[in-house]
Order: sequence, then C-alpha cells, then structure tokens
Amino acid sequence: MSDSPVTGWSRGMRPDHLFRRFEFGSYAQTRRFLDELAQLSESMGVAPQNIGFGTTHVNVTIAAEGQSLTDQDLLLAVRIGQLAGVQPAAAA
Amino acid sequence: MSDSPVTGWSRGMRPDHLFRRFEFGSYAQTRRFLDELAQLSESMGVAPQNIGFGTTHVNVTIAAEGQSLTDQDLLLAVRIGQLAGVQPAAAA
Repeated sequence: MSDSPVTGWSRGMRPDHLFRRFEFGSYAQTRRFLDELAQLSESMGVAPQNIGFGTTHVNVTIAAEGQSLTDQDLLLAVRIGQLAGVQPAAAA
Repeated sequence: MSDSPVTGWSRGMRPDHLFRRFEFGSYAQTRRFLDELAQLSESMGVAPQNIGFGTTHVNVTIAAEGQSLTDQDLLLAVRIGQLAGVQPAAAA
C-alpha cells in the first residue's frame, strides 16, 4: 500500500491531512494557479484548510474536518494536481 | 519609539519583516481581501513574501529582500491594512 492515497501529495496525521508544495516559474503562473484553485474550490464546495504562497510557490494543506479525509477531500487533491499540469499516470 | 513602524503589524528580524493576521467572518470576505491584495500588489509592483490563508483568516508576511524594509514595503503594509477596513488613527 502507498503511504499517500494521492500521487504527489504527502500524508500526515493528527489531523489526517494531505500536503503538497507547488513551484512555479513566475508570479503570473502562481497567480493563475491560485485563481484556478479558488474556482475549483467554489465549484466543488470544499476548500483546502490552508494555502500558503509566495511569488513562485504554493503550499497546500487539505485536512480532515472529522476523523479522516473524505472522498471529496481526496478528489480535491487530485484535481488541484491536475490544475498544476500533473496528470495521473493512468490516462485513457 | 514604537516596536513596529506600521500600526497593527508586528515586526520581526532576520530578516527584517512585518507580520499580521487578518480574521474574516466568511470565506467570501477572505476571498475578496485576497483578490484586492493581489490587485494592490500588482499596481504597486511589490508583493508580500508570504501569504497564508484558510477559509476565514489570512496571515501576511512582508520581508525585506535586502538589509531592511524599504519605504515601498512599509507603504504596502499600510495599504493592506486599509484594504481590511483598518483606517489610520489620524484621519482628516
């Protein structure tokens, strides 16, 4: 079994959470990612617990509100990875 | 002399920086503040070193790139405070 259920993210406990750092080549790319992430959150109705960013990086933490991460939390992580141009290994 | 040159912000060293936490009543208010902060940064050509946010809070760190904070850094701090609805004590 994998340590993390979502490729590219590290999993931590207490509370159950996923963390990932995204690096960008410019502030414009960082801003675009943040804007798309905000739109994604609104459309899914679920938001990361914390987002930290500077000019060329974004740290995202998705934490469980209850005992453990929900399917919606895991899907949010996958989709955020896709925003950043990281496609799942198994595609059609 | 004041500990911090800008009202509402705490000052730290190594590197010279200003820090402030803003709390909001809703995610919509948090998003609006973040959007306005991004527009302000672009118009001033200077951005905080780090911004960390959750659904109802935003932590802002403005750090010196050189030895100490510049006039532009200090002005950015004042204007971010104004975005959040905090007016300077001495107004006309």
